[in-house]
Amino acid sequence: MSDPLLAHVNDLCSRARPAATLAARLDDAQKTAALLAAADAITAAAETIQAANALDLAQAAHDGLAPAMVDRLRLDGKRLDAVVADLHAVARLPDPCGRIIEERTIAQGIQAQKIAVPIGVVAIIFESRPNVTVDAASLCLRAGNACILRGGKEAVHTNRALAAAFRQGLTAAGVDADVVQLVQQQDRALVPLLLAREDAVDIVIPRGGETLIRAVVECSRVPVIKHDKGVCSLYVHADADQDMALRLVDNAKRQRPGVCNAIENLLVHRDAAATFLPRLRAALPDVELRADATALPLIAGAVPATPADWESEYLALILAVRVVASLDEAIALTNRHGSHHSDSIICRDQVAAERYLREVDSACVYHNASTRFTDGAQFGFGAEVGISTNRLHARGPMGLAELCTYKWVCRGHGQAR
Amino acid sequence: MSDPLLAHVNDLCSRARPAATLAARLDDAQKTAALLAAADAITAAAETIQAANALDLAQAAHDGLAPAMVDRLRLDGKRLDAVVADLHAVARLPDPCGRIIEERTIAQGIQAQKIAVPIGVVAIIFESRPNVTVDAASLCLRAGNACILRGGKEAVHTNRALAAAFRQGLTAAGVDADVVQLVQQQDRALVPLLLAREDAVDIVIPRGGETLIRAVVECSRVPVIKHDKGVCSLYVHADADQDMALRLVDNAKRQRPGVCNAIENLLVHRDAAATFLPRLRAALPDVELRADATALPLIAGAVPATPADWESEYLALILAVRVVASLDEAIALTNRHGSHHSDSIICRDQVAAERYLREVDSACVYHNASTRFTDGAQFGFGAEVGISTNRLHARGPMGLAELCTYKWVCRGHGQAR
Repeated sequence: MSDPLLAHVNDLCSRARPAATLAARLDDAQKTAALLAAADAITAAAETIQAANALDLAQAAHDGLAPAMVDRLRLDGKRLDAVVADLHAVARLPDPCGRIIEERTIAQGIQAQKIAVPIGVVAIIFESRPNVTVDAASLCLRAGNACILRGGKEAVHTNRALAAAFRQGLTAAGVDADVVQLVQQQDRALVPLLLAREDAVDIVIPRGGETLIRAVVECSRVPVIKHDKGVCSLYVHADADQDMALRLVDNAKRQRPGVCNAIENLLVHRDAAATFLPRLRAALPDVELRADATALPLIAGAVPATPADWESEYLALILAVRVVASLDEAIALTNRHGSHHSDSIICRDQVAAERYLREVDSACVYHNASTRFTDGAQFGFGAEVGISTNRLHARGPMGLAELCTYKWVCRGHGQAR
Repeated sequence: MSDPLLAHVNDLCSRARPAATLAARLDDAQKTAALLAAADAITAAAETIQAANALDLAQAAHDGLAPAMVDRLRLDGKRLDAVVADLHAVARLPDPCGRIIEERTIAQGIQAQKIAVPIGVVAIIFESRPNVTVDAASLCLRAGNACILRGGKEAVHTNRALAAAFRQGLTAAGVDADVVQLVQQQDRALVPLLLAREDAVDIVIPRGGETLIRAVVECSRVPVIKHDKGVCSLYVHADADQDMALRLVDNAKRQRPGVCNAIENLLVHRDAAATFLPRLRAALPDVELRADATALPLIAGAVPATPADWESEYLALILAVRVVASLDEAIALTNRHGSHHSDSIICRDQVAAERYLREVDSACVYHNASTRFTDGAQFGFGAEVGISTNRLHARGPMGLAELCTYKWVCRGHGQAR
């Protein structure tokens, strides 16, 4: 029964490695030309792509998908223009390959260089937003990788049309179309078969909700770069500039509550609580505040927090608030309950700030800044693959550099041990 | 039935994370003191350790272990002195933590530093050599990590005695002994239970034979840094200095044939074959040469190679020899049949050398040097955890720097998005 799936996986894998070898040899100009050709091909195929998108939208309406989901699926003229513009932007980004990361003279005077090189074959498993197809393909190619893309079933026609156009562009530019492959069978049973192939796939990046990420982690023998949830916090120290603290809480919670670098927890030193918490209530009138027993009487209209609140990713205008006795307690609670994503201390005391920055074990730790800066664009990476919640290889914002690995190139003149 | 195993895993894991938090906060001087205290404690416990080793040796004799295996188990006075000397050497190594890997000014002038920090909890699964217990523990601690060690059953008494002494040293230095934990139950069923705990273990390093490595890769949900086999090759280009080539083949094959960075394959350009191969036979009289059809008549006493020879790790005085028509063929064969570990080209032509260095997809690629330099000590890393055959995080020689990950430390003055 699973034979057609296995045959498809074998076909994808047998094409991916040779394509990766070719992709790794493309120079900067060739990759730029290929990306521009893909942009042209997508522009030329706009009608086909939008007809395919109409099929997906009709199916979504038939299936009664929620309006927000339907909106994410939609690829109208304006959004397709944005996809093409993004492709042009990626084409202009500097080539991350070939960068000398480190140089050292090793034994007997051999000159060793640690050089950034493509990872190889990158699998990306994603959900309904069809622009991810082009985005993922272009970033992988910019970094000299081949990719195997597996999109959600809601966008199947749109994804196929986009991938077909992208591949036509590659062919037009003289690049092997198999540098970008789209999984053609939506059966979920295919994913574990693909991710068992550690010989053929070098890394998998799941992009989507927690269920998708869990499913990938559980079945994969290939290294996974997770883009998991963010339970981020902000800590207002005893000596904090409270005006600044209010501005940053407002920004970190309210500027865009539905993203992983928004805060879900606020810790306030007990010496600041009596003045700060009443102001918080006034500053964030539309945010539901869930408070511990000490904070509760200081916040009009707050509701009591439950233990689950300290570890919840609300992605909504809800904030859990807790009074702490010390910097130590703030650090310990952040490490224990947070997701090690992004956390910030607001304080004047440099010693306290440095202890927090050192001891909070998160991908990004901030002093007197919003956690919302954890983002590839804000970091100046030019492009963002996502925000890794892994501890290894890529931690925090993931750009083109993190779609590369390295090798050691060693030049000698006859040295033997 | 597996309850005692699960209870032991739970106990190890519940101790490891707090210990890792403490280990990460130790400064350079504290870690140095702890390592020296461990060395002292091992010296003080020498009699106990050797009595334990005698038990293991007696059991090995009773079980009829091969003499080479018994020798690997033995920890006599001289070897114990070496263990202590190694501990002193690790104590003197510079602290890899806190290094600024990169600095950048991100959005709105926030100062971001990418800082080397400990990985966290490192599991190391290894085989019979008991000195690995101390070696692994000391390297993990030097990099600020907690470790969970699981040694082979042959060395169980020795490992327990060494770990107990190490932990006494930690306690004497005021460091939580749980920074170094030894798995106390040898049941193999424990390993999958431990490596399912991605919440508690951040990385696993299997050190040992292929069977051990496969078993770990297949059961682990924790990222694995493999130290897998080396099928390395050397390519003698048409214009190679043949004297140099002979010296380097000799070194790469014969200096220490049982290691992963020794070569198993020799590729020779057809224009060099007629002069080079007869000289090879004379230069390596004790090496069994397995030759392809073109090389066979040029090498007195060679035996015909089979397809399996191109992918075999002999770890012995055997070399597979093949004549190639071009640099392209040499690169393609190396990428197809090798294990992407260490490969070398011998040639005068700089253009050919650069193409080889760029296109051979291995952790270490050499021009006019022996593959035997792929080694932490030769690279000047001070200490070697091993030679990683992973593509990500650590590729090639793995030192203390690769026992660290990084985090982003961002300093602002009130920036909000």
